[in-house]
Amino acid sequence: MRLARRPVGDVGPDDWEHVTEAAAAPGAGRFAGRTRYISLDPAMRGWLDDRPSYLPPVGIGEVMRAASIVEVTESDHPDFQVGDLVTGAFGVQERVVSDGRGALKIDPAAASPSTYLGALGMPGLTAYFGLLDVGALKDGDTVVVSGAAGAVGSMVGQIAKAKGCRVIGIAGGAEKCALLTGELGFDAAIDYRTENVRKALRTHAPDGIDVYFDNVGGDVLDAALANLARHARVVICGAISQYNTTTGVQGPANYLALLVARARMEGFVIFDYAPRFTEAAREIGGWIAAGRIKVLEHVVKGTVDDFPATLQMLFRGENTGKLVLELD
Amino acid sequence: MRLARRPVGDVGPDDWEHVTEAAAAPGAGRFAGRTRYISLDPAMRGWLDDRPSYLPPVGIGEVMRAASIVEVTESDHPDFQVGDLVTGAFGVQERVVSDGRGALKIDPAAASPSTYLGALGMPGLTAYFGLLDVGALKDGDTVVVSGAAGAVGSMVGQIAKAKGCRVIGIAGGAEKCALLTGELGFDAAIDYRTENVRKALRTHAPDGIDVYFDNVGGDVLDAALANLARHARVVICGAISQYNTTTGVQGPANYLALLVARARMEGFVIFDYAPRFTEAAREIGGWIAAGRIKVLEHVVKGTVDDFPATLQMLFRGENTGKLVLELD
Repeated sequence: MRLARRPVGDVGPDDWEHVTEAAAAPGAGRFAGRTRYISLDPAMRGWLDDRPSYLPPVGIGEVMRAASIVEVTESDHPDFQVGDLVTGAFGVQERVVSDGRGALKIDPAAASPSTYLGALGMPGLTAYFGLLDVGALKDGDTVVVSGAAGAVGSMVGQIAKAKGCRVIGIAGGAEKCALLTGELGFDAAIDYRTENVRKALRTHAPDGIDVYFDNVGGDVLDAALANLARHARVVICGAISQYNTTTGVQGPANYLALLVARARMEGFVIFDYAPRFTEAAREIGGWIAAGRIKVLEHVVKGTVDDFPATLQMLFRGENTGKLVLELD
Repeated sequence: MRLARRPVGDVGPDDWEHVTEAAAAPGAGRFAGRTRYISLDPAMRGWLDDRPSYLPPVGIGEVMRAASIVEVTESDHPDFQVGDLVTGAFGVQERVVSDGRGALKIDPAAASPSTYLGALGMPGLTAYFGLLDVGALKDGDTVVVSGAAGAVGSMVGQIAKAKGCRVIGIAGGAEKCALLTGELGFDAAIDYRTENVRKALRTHAPDGIDVYFDNVGGDVLDAALANLARHARVVICGAISQYNTTTGVQGPANYLALLVARARMEGFVIFDYAPRFTEAAREIGGWIAAGRIKVLEHVVKGTVDDFPATLQMLFRGENTGKLVLELD
């Protein structure tokens, strides 16, 4: 699946081109494989814009960048054997040839393969380092997370609970909110579609928010800023409400609350934490094994042709947990 | 000078009431004095709004809050003698009675009295702790400050120069810009009224901004965010461009640059640093004595009746350096 043109606003079917080419033999020092699972992430929208960011944009005509799980079908690489399951940034394609750089073997006995794209992959690691390192989580903190039923948000809330904090999730719809408090152990959930988020935060966090982990931006970010505790940390992970804007990003009008609350707002890029990924994945894996963290996945079965429509589910809030495309 | 009503947008003459009352005798444990200098500060605008902030709003009918320099004319207080010069939050009034709480004797031999409202007062201390502590200034940093010809901004730039950093100031008008580079030792100055600030910053800070000290908000803040170096610190000190808005604060649309740059934006309130004021004032005083920092003051001579019009000078950018009303 190649990028055909740069989308303006919402990504549509005409922004992509499905090109069929003969699968190549791997060649010396390489392996070939077939894609089993493709990760769909809000950050993908940013990669489609031609502007400087933490990664170069996907070029027109290039295979769409994506993390995936690949099963090795042929190998001339000493570290990868036929049948191995491997994760890496292999892109949105059915067949893959790789020299192994950036590829990591996964253990399907330890967790189901798609978990390595979610709770044990970038979303889980993003939640872990964003909350603990950037957010500098402390005992007794009140944590609020937006996009709380998403891949990152559901992990943020559960990690904060595992660390003994009080957690309030913001999500869209009664079903997601019920899931947060009923299944994932959140202390409270706020439905931004039907509730006044600012007032609801005042109710659920009367002493203010110590850590606000933002995945959405826009009005929800402003509502959180209006409810900060002193020395609060606002973690800027993403802004899914703003990614498809054609009228300019809505800046947080309440940013001067940072002054009154002596608070900080900080961004981060997960790749900077690569040296500590193994350590973090081990701790997350322990929580999963102990039943303290539930893996929340939304698996769509289909082909790479389903990638464009599946991607749009993210921006309509139609997924609950990590959105994955499982190839037939 | 009492607050007559809450201003909407720009502060006007009808928002104030000049009330004349007989001067009281100090009484036991108190002193009386006449006001010599009144400080005018952008933060005053915030104190007029009825909303929670780092200080309670000035009440309707209350004497306007202001820092000032008072000469003791009568005293029944053991620590203050007739002729002493004292600084404190004595408000916009000609005569003062005080029990001495929050009052601090100043040494007119060390610096002219009004300096204790500027370089050696809250603006100087705000610059010092905002830059060094919140901004975590490091050797070799590129520092950008907005409102650079103002009371705080002129100190921020000069302190950064005293610490050996490269400094770019943003100010309004060619005269102010010439002052910054010609008199105060700034490496470059950008006139936001005539230049494209975003492009000018790219020219003057090609490797990005390490510390951005913001006094103005609005478009200038967005221009700085578009030019951050990795791990930049954005210090939120004020937002003078936004204080008189009647259409809502303009939030920084480029706040997602914090993510790409792994940067943070942080607010602070100077009163939190009270235990370290003496230490900081000593260091600032040393720089002034050594000629490394020039005290920039804009003194308006008049009566308390001139307070409302003088205050408005701040919001029109008509002052250069610390704005002070000297009472005849």
